[in-house]
Amino acid sequence: MAQHVVVIGAVALGPKAAARFKRLEPDSRVTLVDRDALFSYGGCGIPFYVSGEVPDVDALRKTAFHMVRDEEFFRKTKGVDVRARTEAVAIDRAAKTVTLRHLPSKAEEVLPYDKLVLGTGSSPIVLPIPGANLPGVFTVNNLGAAQSIRELAASGKVGSAVVVGAGFIGLEMAVSLSDLWGIQTTVIEFRDQLLPGVSGPNIARMAMHHMREKGVEFRLAEQVQGFEAGADGRVARVVTNAGAVDADLVIMAVGVRPNDELARACGLDVHERGGIIVDKTMRTSDPDIFAGGDCVVLEHAVSKGATYLPMGSMANRQGRVIGTNLAGGHATFPPVVGSWCVKLFDLAAAGAGLTLAAAQNAGFDALCVHAGLVDRAHFYPEKGLMSLDLVVERGSGRVLGMQGLAVNGDALVGKVDVVAALLPSAPTAFDLGNVEMAYSPPFSAALDILNVLGNAADNILTGRNAGIHVDEFAALLHDGTDRIVLDCREAKGTEALVEKYPGIWINIPQGDLAEHLGALPRDKQIVLICSTGARSYEAFITLAHNGFENIVSVEGGITAVTAAGLDV
Amino acid sequence: MAQHVVVIGAVALGPKAAARFKRLEPDSRVTLVDRDALFSYGGCGIPFYVSGEVPDVDALRKTAFHMVRDEEFFRKTKGVDVRARTEAVAIDRAAKTVTLRHLPSKAEEVLPYDKLVLGTGSSPIVLPIPGANLPGVFTVNNLGAAQSIRELAASGKVGSAVVVGAGFIGLEMAVSLSDLWGIQTTVIEFRDQLLPGVSGPNIARMAMHHMREKGVEFRLAEQVQGFEAGADGRVARVVTNAGAVDADLVIMAVGVRPNDELARACGLDVHERGGIIVDKTMRTSDPDIFAGGDCVVLEHAVSKGATYLPMGSMANRQGRVIGTNLAGGHATFPPVVGSWCVKLFDLAAAGAGLTLAAAQNAGFDALCVHAGLVDRAHFYPEKGLMSLDLVVERGSGRVLGMQGLAVNGDALVGKVDVVAALLPSAPTAFDLGNVEMAYSPPFSAALDILNVLGNAADNILTGRNAGIHVDEFAALLHDGTDRIVLDCREAKGTEALVEKYPGIWINIPQGDLAEHLGALPRDKQIVLICSTGARSYEAFITLAHNGFENIVSVEGGITAVTAAGLDV
Repeated sequence: MAQHVVVIGAVALGPKAAARFKRLEPDSRVTLVDRDALFSYGGCGIPFYVSGEVPDVDALRKTAFHMVRDEEFFRKTKGVDVRARTEAVAIDRAAKTVTLRHLPSKAEEVLPYDKLVLGTGSSPIVLPIPGANLPGVFTVNNLGAAQSIRELAASGKVGSAVVVGAGFIGLEMAVSLSDLWGIQTTVIEFRDQLLPGVSGPNIARMAMHHMREKGVEFRLAEQVQGFEAGADGRVARVVTNAGAVDADLVIMAVGVRPNDELARACGLDVHERGGIIVDKTMRTSDPDIFAGGDCVVLEHAVSKGATYLPMGSMANRQGRVIGTNLAGGHATFPPVVGSWCVKLFDLAAAGAGLTLAAAQNAGFDALCVHAGLVDRAHFYPEKGLMSLDLVVERGSGRVLGMQGLAVNGDALVGKVDVVAALLPSAPTAFDLGNVEMAYSPPFSAALDILNVLGNAADNILTGRNAGIHVDEFAALLHDGTDRIVLDCREAKGTEALVEKYPGIWINIPQGDLAEHLGALPRDKQIVLICSTGARSYEAFITLAHNGFENIVSVEGGITAVTAAGLDV
Repeated sequence: MAQHVVVIGAVALGPKAAARFKRLEPDSRVTLVDRDALFSYGGCGIPFYVSGEVPDVDALRKTAFHMVRDEEFFRKTKGVDVRARTEAVAIDRAAKTVTLRHLPSKAEEVLPYDKLVLGTGSSPIVLPIPGANLPGVFTVNNLGAAQSIRELAASGKVGSAVVVGAGFIGLEMAVSLSDLWGIQTTVIEFRDQLLPGVSGPNIARMAMHHMREKGVEFRLAEQVQGFEAGADGRVARVVTNAGAVDADLVIMAVGVRPNDELARACGLDVHERGGIIVDKTMRTSDPDIFAGGDCVVLEHAVSKGATYLPMGSMANRQGRVIGTNLAGGHATFPPVVGSWCVKLFDLAAAGAGLTLAAAQNAGFDALCVHAGLVDRAHFYPEKGLMSLDLVVERGSGRVLGMQGLAVNGDALVGKVDVVAALLPSAPTAFDLGNVEMAYSPPFSAALDILNVLGNAADNILTGRNAGIHVDEFAALLHDGTDRIVLDCREAKGTEALVEKYPGIWINIPQGDLAEHLGALPRDKQIVLICSTGARSYEAFITLAHNGFENIVSVEGGITAVTAAGLDV
């Protein structure tokens, strides 16, 4: 029986659901409605359009076959009617109608539906502070804004820019403005680290160190209070609780919120923190209404709580599930683990599952284990550092999440994707130590970094090692307590530190340690450090076996200290 | 209670098991025995040493901290005694002793053990044909052979080389000789494709096309019958059932066999096709004797049969499990899926699980679905082709394996590792279509290629598409049957093919198809093709919906045809 399906929102989720449904039920009718004139674009590509890497806006609207996804395209190749510049203003669930308003003409129309899909997306949060609407202050929410930002960046009139918010979009925009247009860019973040919520402090600090080296300035734990105009009426200054920063261009990237008003107004279940509630089939509380993409909340596979993941990848996959179910299918969308990745100049950051803070908030007795190693066989000439944080539960040893930073983004994303694939089945650190990874020296190490990380966590969880992170190490080095830092590397390269910290920083190569136990105090804490943490682990074993009790080793070693830009 | 553990074989597995055990039981004693003077090296690095990418043999013997893993290293940093140039000649399980023979002196010694570990590795197969022992004919089995091959390659005296066997090592050696030393290299393979056993014909053909473009010659389905010497007594010619090939250097890389003689002689259970049988704790049929690495057979997680995977990565992970269990632990090594990867000039090949042939041999009613797509968001400027074969079971839709080839090896390995991580839990094609992959345009597409591949397989399994592979397409194009090839791309670029195959190859862009159904014959087969298979799938839906019955679409489209070097 032919149906009429109305899809509200024509970016990512909507077109995917519409096209899938039409393939399954070619005789049914689909109407795809969007507020904008430009729809069905790759929104995640906006920072790369702003940078100039993507040449024009149409590139974000094209298929892989170079066809622009306009009304004509959808009609001819997908059999889907598109109503652009048309807003859905009300849903009457009893009558099964949606009221549409054509924006240019203001004409309204009541459209009956058999099934309705809400792909209403999200809106960037605009800070409720003075000057938020000044010319030159932007949010990154659609192709029009992207065009304006790129024009301004390319005009040569922007001396300095401020990005408010150090999440994915904020950092990507900072890279675009700074790297490609050479604009002096400052990122101001309310919280005390980059990538808050998705990364722990270790990886965030390393990412910040790299971006600072590339010329981006950061002001963390600082609150933007307003934007001030210059003589030309355009934004000229950003005022914070810690002072002011000049800026001819401001990007507000402090997050997005789900467009759930339409759903709320017609009485659908909406989460208390926002976002339409859907079941595993992507149905709302009304079985004839589906929703997906940036306007819904999802179940987290690890925390089991509701999570909000406004990502194009989620929307595309959910679109297919909705399309299938519109046609009477029984597809389900599994709980999510929140995989992410972002390119930051020459490095990539990525993660999946819970951060340590998120794990603790979700009630897990969790800890975070760090490892930093080269991403290939160590004898292979081309290789780069990969730094990984593994979040694990004490007792069970269950892996709860992983975040990382690496020179080789593709390799890092591969490791994160593996952890993401495993997370729903609740693997332990031991399992990760044993996970089968493809090996050849140009691509990986015989004991893959994921295996090493799993084993390192297993050693800590079973009490065979006790680790501290580099920030803790940097802090305790200067806290005045009388302790020993035992550098387990070979002598060469350790001299400067031994000299800098007389009586504190000593060097005994790990292989010589058993013969020099008498030289070590038993009444002081001994902090073990080496290049990456492997030899300090061996040293830990030796000392523990010989009755030393107050010992810790620095996870990731000197390599991690350097990557984090810490001063030792 | 302190134990004495004897470990036979000091490459990969042995050292790992020994070191792990000593960390867990520092008071126990470990004796590590090896026949060679040079041990504990990264054997998988040999092709890269031969090529010169790895500068010297010691680089393969060093730790990541630049320490050579010699006897002194093991004694000082690991607390392990090494007996090099010492062969284990017999095991007395009742007396719990092993008889060692020091090779230079021939002196024998009977060493008691509490637990024994067999890490005896594998030996390259030497073809039982005339001339196999001529100077200039090598197997790649140890650092000594590697040094001889490199010296010869670097001497400038080698005009042409033959590699016998197109497996991992054969192909890596062909790349090393050809690419780095500029030696004209011919690979002769007994079977009819590259990477037999681990890759299907699709990916193998694409890999061969690339290597041929780089100058390597291939002779497939050809049997080497002997090697002939020149006037200097060194190898000069390789004789096959199809003729002879000149060669000043021959690498025999036709596989390895497990060194299971010692185990067999003392009555341990050994597989009928070779390889020591171990349980999940890596114990042999004698609970005091463990074995791992290249000398054992393992359980395959998909086929459930015994599988032989002589890989350094397996050995390293098994070593830790054995070390744990030597110390009274209860670690298990899970069934394997056989992940692999190999660098072939500018491309990488990789895979996990079963090939189509292996799946059918294991009793699965399986088929193989192909997809070829760029590895990133299509609008991102830097991207490359990734080609993937997915092996799935009809009916259940279960994923049994995946093999691929790509410009971006790290990205490919990431996808393979994800499939490898999922395989033990028996995912379906639908599950793969829904698997959560980290997305950002510089690293992946919103609908990841794994999602696309899973969906493509799901469409075929549920009868919404019917695919043929490019080799079948190339064959049917020239089989004389009266049929139509319907090219669904936009007109531009299709003209030459329409002209070349008059009355057979026609072009109707997919978006115009619904309006031109009358132009299509209902009494002939219609073969749909487009750029990558996406539009031919849409066209398939349209034709099927309109009652056309004899239709197939070419999986991977023109892109796959070109990548395979097929002539259309």
